[in-house]
Amino acid sequence: MGLLNATDYGDLVDVENFKRSVAGAELNVSIGLSRLGHTVEYVTKIGKDPIGESIVKYLTSENINTEHMLFSESHKTGLMLKSRVKQGDPAIAYYRSHSAFTTFSLEDVNQLEMDSVKLLHITGIPLAINTSVREALFSLVKKAKKAGVFITLDPNLRPSIWESEEQMVKVINEMASYADVILPGIAEGEILTGSSSIEDIAQFYLDLGVKVVITKSGEAGAYVSEINKETENVKGFKVEQVIDTVGAGDGFAAGIIHGYLSGYSWAKSAKYANAIGALQVQYVGDNQNLPTKDKLEAYIESFN
Amino acid sequence: MGLLNATDYGDLVDVENFKRSVAGAELNVSIGLSRLGHTVEYVTKIGKDPIGESIVKYLTSENINTEHMLFSESHKTGLMLKSRVKQGDPAIAYYRSHSAFTTFSLEDVNQLEMDSVKLLHITGIPLAINTSVREALFSLVKKAKKAGVFITLDPNLRPSIWESEEQMVKVINEMASYADVILPGIAEGEILTGSSSIEDIAQFYLDLGVKVVITKSGEAGAYVSEINKETENVKGFKVEQVIDTVGAGDGFAAGIIHGYLSGYSWAKSAKYANAIGALQVQYVGDNQNLPTKDKLEAYIESFN
Repeated sequence: MGLLNATDYGDLVDVENFKRSVAGAELNVSIGLSRLGHTVEYVTKIGKDPIGESIVKYLTSENINTEHMLFSESHKTGLMLKSRVKQGDPAIAYYRSHSAFTTFSLEDVNQLEMDSVKLLHITGIPLAINTSVREALFSLVKKAKKAGVFITLDPNLRPSIWESEEQMVKVINEMASYADVILPGIAEGEILTGSSSIEDIAQFYLDLGVKVVITKSGEAGAYVSEINKETENVKGFKVEQVIDTVGAGDGFAAGIIHGYLSGYSWAKSAKYANAIGALQVQYVGDNQNLPTKDKLEAYIESFN
Repeated sequence: MGLLNATDYGDLVDVENFKRSVAGAELNVSIGLSRLGHTVEYVTKIGKDPIGESIVKYLTSENINTEHMLFSESHKTGLMLKSRVKQGDPAIAYYRSHSAFTTFSLEDVNQLEMDSVKLLHITGIPLAINTSVREALFSLVKKAKKAGVFITLDPNLRPSIWESEEQMVKVINEMASYADVILPGIAEGEILTGSSSIEDIAQFYLDLGVKVVITKSGEAGAYVSEINKETENVKGFKVEQVIDTVGAGDGFAAGIIHGYLSGYSWAKSAKYANAIGALQVQYVGDNQNLPTKDKLEAYIESFN
């Protein structure tokens, strides 16, 4: 969606100056993958308005394919305002409750072909929008599954945009049953499974049919769990100063997918994912500092 | 509604920096009247969001009463993005099709008391929103009429936000039948009545029961028409350079209402209205340069 970042510090009610950019967990993952040299297509539904057009322009500038972008004739591109803070979480004001994406439908899914798709990445965020979007997303995932597409899911829990925590947990776990890989943060895993043990969280999803559970634990790195294998801890990279954690999880997802598409082991994929996450938290911005392949390799090399 | 003005020149798709302020024809009239020393209440329906809060804050800073402001729980405050141009009309992108005001209803009107209201000013813009808003506005005007409130109407034609020109003409002329004063521009009068003659435009509205028709004709000034009286031309003020015509009509309306509330003749009111219009076109901005009473008197004096 469109993002208007306050450039002045202060309450959103008082600040006057904003700088526009583009936001979205899936968009950050797309940019991460494109910078790493993969062929990426980003699908969402936007309005025929300058915010939507600017998103397409930005994606194109990042070499992301937008051929199957969906347009609403009646609804506008989602928009959010974000305050600027010296510390703590910024305040967010959404203009998304009637956005173009709220009209994403089964009909839209029918327009999407899976012929040349290797992998589909989704997050829990769009599942919160409304019942018909949810229905369309489940239809999309089933269609992908049927076509043999590999499915990765980042739960990306946003309790504030769901009707209830109960519903959030139910829907995301139902979606997980279609996923090949799930990437919960450890706190998310606890909310979703009721257990704070990494092994139990992993087992919950392995029992649902997920092939690989990669649990993120911040500085401790990631835990890779596969059926009938011991859970493996892949250590994180040491970061001197955390500047902005926004986009770190998305960078991590890009790293996992990069590893999968490159034929790496899950442990090696998690190492790359940790590295992108570590790079992300050292800079302000959701996706501006996602690394190219050369930059990523050099960063990992610097720790050897 | 909230307004995000691009601070960079260029297409809205490309510009990045915006400055927030507040926009609206009725709001400009309110500010004009408040600066001239009148007690003003501004009624609209906004969302419970930072844009809405900032509007209330701005109105309060302009000494405008917001006691009866209506809030939607489910819909956001209307918002518009406006491009910055070196010449010609700026591009506008609206976030208003699902704004809080689109839920303005008969129930909201029932909450509004007319006890201490002397004058109600409305424009044609909110009549374009949808059928239920329209119904609520007609109910409001009938309620005001019944309570003996004086009603002024600025057609403010915005063909692009109406379903059809035919509908726009029909609805605004129906509203005019409840008005005591109507303030059409000469081009608006032609669209609304089918005649380009100032006398015929005036007669059309006098026949509908309007007491005073004040037709605006830019540099030629205004034409005041009352039943059984000769139409009187009130000359405009000479302006060296027109910088920005936005808000001139709203300033004019504030001048007419100021004259009425001050007990001036309609010709004298039109002179004050012309003066505010002339001041408005010499500055950039919708309402920032609306004059105080002293400034307005001094400006008129400077031509004597």
